[in-house]
Amino acid sequence: MSTSDIITGEIVGTAMLVLLGGGVCAAVNFKRSKAHNAGWVAITFGWGLGVLTGAYIAAGVSGAHLNPAVTLGLALQGGTDWSDVPVYIASELVGAMLGAFLVWIAYYGQFKTHLADLDVQSGPLDQDTAEVAVQQAGPMLGIFSTGPEIRNAAQNLATEVIATFVLVIAILTQGLNDDGNGLGTLGVLITALVVVGIGLSLGGPTGYAINPARDLGPRIVHALLPLKGKGGSDWGYAWIPVVGPLIGAALAGGLYNVAFA
Amino acid sequence: MSTSDIITGEIVGTAMLVLLGGGVCAAVNFKRSKAHNAGWVAITFGWGLGVLTGAYIAAGVSGAHLNPAVTLGLALQGGTDWSDVPVYIASELVGAMLGAFLVWIAYYGQFKTHLADLDVQSGPLDQDTAEVAVQQAGPMLGIFSTGPEIRNAAQNLATEVIATFVLVIAILTQGLNDDGNGLGTLGVLITALVVVGIGLSLGGPTGYAINPARDLGPRIVHALLPLKGKGGSDWGYAWIPVVGPLIGAALAGGLYNVAFA
Amino acid sequence: MSTSDIITGEIVGTAMLVLLGGGVCAAVNFKRSKAHNAGWVAITFGWGLGVLTGAYIAAGVSGAHLNPAVTLGLALQGGTDWSDVPVYIASELVGAMLGAFLVWIAYYGQFKTHLADLDVQSGPLDQDTAEVAVQQAGPMLGIFSTGPEIRNAAQNLATEVIATFVLVIAILTQGLNDDGNGLGTLGVLITALVVVGIGLSLGGPTGYAINPARDLGPRIVHALLPLKGKGGSDWGYAWIPVVGPLIGAALAGGLYNVAFA
Amino acid sequence: MSTSDIITGEIVGTAMLVLLGGGVCAAVNFKRSKAHNAGWVAITFGWGLGVLTGAYIAAGVSGAHLNPAVTLGLALQGGTDWSDVPVYIASELVGAMLGAFLVWIAYYGQFKTHLADLDVQSGPLDQDTAEVAVQQAGPMLGIFSTGPEIRNAAQNLATEVIATFVLVIAILTQGLNDDGNGLGTLGVLITALVVVGIGLSLGGPTGYAINPARDLGPRIVHALLPLKGKGGSDWGYAWIPVVGPLIGAALAGGLYNVAFA
Repeated sequence: MSTSDIITGEIVGTAMLVLLGGGVCAAVNFKRSKAHNAGWVAITFGWGLGVLTGAYIAAGVSGAHLNPAVTLGLALQGGTDWSDVPVYIASELVGAMLGAFLVWIAYYGQFKTHLADLDVQSGPLDQDTAEVAVQQAGPMLGIFSTGPEIRNAAQNLATEVIATFVLVIAILTQGLNDDGNGLGTLGVLITALVVVGIGLSLGGPTGYAINPARDLGPRIVHALLPLKGKGGSDWGYAWIPVVGPLIGAALAGGLYNVAFA
Repeated sequence: MSTSDIITGEIVGTAMLVLLGGGVCAAVNFKRSKAHNAGWVAITFGWGLGVLTGAYIAAGVSGAHLNPAVTLGLALQGGTDWSDVPVYIASELVGAMLGAFLVWIAYYGQFKTHLADLDVQSGPLDQDTAEVAVQQAGPMLGIFSTGPEIRNAAQNLATEVIATFVLVIAILTQGLNDDGNGLGTLGVLITALVVVGIGLSLGGPTGYAINPARDLGPRIVHALLPLKGKGGSDWGYAWIPVVGPLIGAALAGGLYNVAFA
Repeated sequence: MSTSDIITGEIVGTAMLVLLGGGVCAAVNFKRSKAHNAGWVAITFGWGLGVLTGAYIAAGVSGAHLNPAVTLGLALQGGTDWSDVPVYIASELVGAMLGAFLVWIAYYGQFKTHLADLDVQSGPLDQDTAEVAVQQAGPMLGIFSTGPEIRNAAQNLATEVIATFVLVIAILTQGLNDDGNGLGTLGVLITALVVVGIGLSLGGPTGYAINPARDLGPRIVHALLPLKGKGGSDWGYAWIPVVGPLIGAALAGGLYNVAFA
Repeated sequence: MSTSDIITGEIVGTAMLVLLGGGVCAAVNFKRSKAHNAGWVAITFGWGLGVLTGAYIAAGVSGAHLNPAVTLGLALQGGTDWSDVPVYIASELVGAMLGAFLVWIAYYGQFKTHLADLDVQSGPLDQDTAEVAVQQAGPMLGIFSTGPEIRNAAQNLATEVIATFVLVIAILTQGLNDDGNGLGTLGVLITALVVVGIGLSLGGPTGYAINPARDLGPRIVHALLPLKGKGGSDWGYAWIPVVGPLIGAALAGGLYNVAFA
């Protein structure tokens, strides 16, 4: 795989992932949206189908990691050269920023009038009213990045570690039941459904970043965009959805090498 | 592929797509329907499974474009002869009109008493009460065609461009991870799920036409059918779900040729 | 395929289909059920996954028709011998009756106290209070068989014809995009999803029987079971979900032979 | 398949199954969760995608039984050596306990403040307030194990027998329509969807254990964990979700050998 293929596949694939993932958060949370209040099933299928779309586009080009935690797991497994890891991760971050920017364009009208349009009382946005000052997590940060329901660094980190472990061990073991030809289209579909399952089952406490690029890239875009009344970007929390997924991926890579290889 | 195969596949396939897509809008919005108020998840799966059904029927006959934007993207990619494009597009439009007509037959009783039966207050119908006079978008136009939540030509166009770009780039790149044998049954399934994802994530602002035939054909049928109190067909908006998808497809075709080919 | 294979596959497969299909109607409508009020999305996925389960079990044994309309369509296409048709249809009817009986066993406690447990006000049960006397359609008939939202023989028949046409044309054309080896596991999955789509989009007016055995078999069981306060079996409506699907299948078979063969 | 492969695959696979399955019950029932009140569709997809994830991970290692009832069915069919059965079942039980423990870690903050956080009034938790003293089934047992809506041993047993029969006969017959190469990735997907269907359609009365390890393992963990105000583990009911699934599997194995083999 050439470096230029990695860059193309990871930027476009991760952008599509975050465009659909951030898009469904906008769709459900803005009042003037046909999907308003569509609920957590809509959110989790939106993200999972974002994975499907991005991975389907990128699979034949870059192998469709779309996630630094997946890149780390595959490098530990030996399926990805360590020398390619920086290119993967940088491309994933750029793609995630691009995807978040496209969410803003697609929902430009809703963002423009967002304080009236946004239903901050309902849905999966951060509601830690007692614990998080508005300066920390603004009312529309949830469209870009994750935040905890109960703010506690150790607990939130543990949740992200476990949820990402599930994703990465599923990806690392798929070569054992496929015929070993890499991801494959059916593998893309099943990975996307695994992400839906992780969202439904383990997304409750922290909103399941399970992907450092998916969380950090949009958080940077949130900080940069000229959004009226957007409030803070909650940088105090930002390390958890980066470090947690990387630990989870390392544990999955380690378990794979010890027990499955 | 013979011209007669293109005509058969595209007419029947697009008719099935619009029958199920328009059908789910009727099912959710009419009061005397077992699916009343089933919500946005039902709408998006109804449309996506309409794509699945129509494309599964037409895949082996005409290649199952079912959408002038897809036809344009494939022509730019080189997979479809430019000389076949007019036949594809005309057949898609005829099929979409036929599908909308069949929605009317299937829900004839509901349409007949529609002013009492239609729940214009809820659901994904156009609710721009402040901005759109009833003369523009009648209370049942949403069963036929799309309309914006916030009416602004540039914003609405941008949303349709982005949403269609996602669909077409996913279709154009599938040959890279399949074994290159064209669509294939698994490709049909994944394309349908991509459409569900686009609906969940990017359908909020405009109702995701992402297909000129799917919007224009039913709008013509809405204008022609003898529906009591149907109100206007909102022709002032009709160009956006035609032009936006074509621009999105052109951008996807261009990106494919530059970066993926 | 031996006659005994046809009998085994069709009885067991159709029983599983109706067990899961009738089961989800019980699950959503009974008050003392964990799925109470789970809604139309639950109903349509329950039926579709009933098709998946029954067809997956029977595909390698009898070809998994599970539906006299499908048997008729395949016979018109030439894929099923006319001499086998009576065995198929009789086995499908027996299987559907067995499935409805198993729903009664699985929900025995709920049925036993049903007048208190049944939420006749909500959900997809027949609510034609103005038009249907309780003697016609009892409060729990909806767990067994279909009924219309607006009672009108011509309209209800048209809806069933159209909905069944979609199902049968999708089954008849699948040989064109598969490699022609008959149903296949992926074909089973897609057929099941097509049934979900038909339910979401065309189930609103009549509850989408689209299968004479699925409707008539459980109606007979409803008439025979000793259910306190069950009310009538609505025999005046019973011919529509038999005749409508057969007409829809005949039209699909005819279209296939004229345009697709 | 080596004993060590069986142990690895069944422990890890069953742990992932119960982690996602128990996780979705926590996600929907705890108040401080982004999935709060997401409903029965979320619950059934969460469990089904837990099956998908666990089985996908374990398929190439241990064959992915993940369930003593499946192990029994396959042993009766002849696909699994009786001498391997104890290792399978012990590993499944250990895996289920591990999965339940991980649910506790992932939702640690929610569990810690659970009496305030838990919405015991709503959702799929056991609500037999009239029949079950709190000492029997504590307010958070539903996150670990199943319980009936109407408590009656014969009825509850019958429901579990029927629901498990559906699962096991689907698994036993899949070799007939696959090419006979064992489970296969598509078979994993379809089995997971069958489990979603069983949940939607037959989960209403008892919460569909359909797996002795999935119910008993978490019940032991519930009894052992230091959870404030957790109430009883309802040991009086615990035999039903063990015995019922084993009877259902035995019936499926018997039917397969008589009618399908």
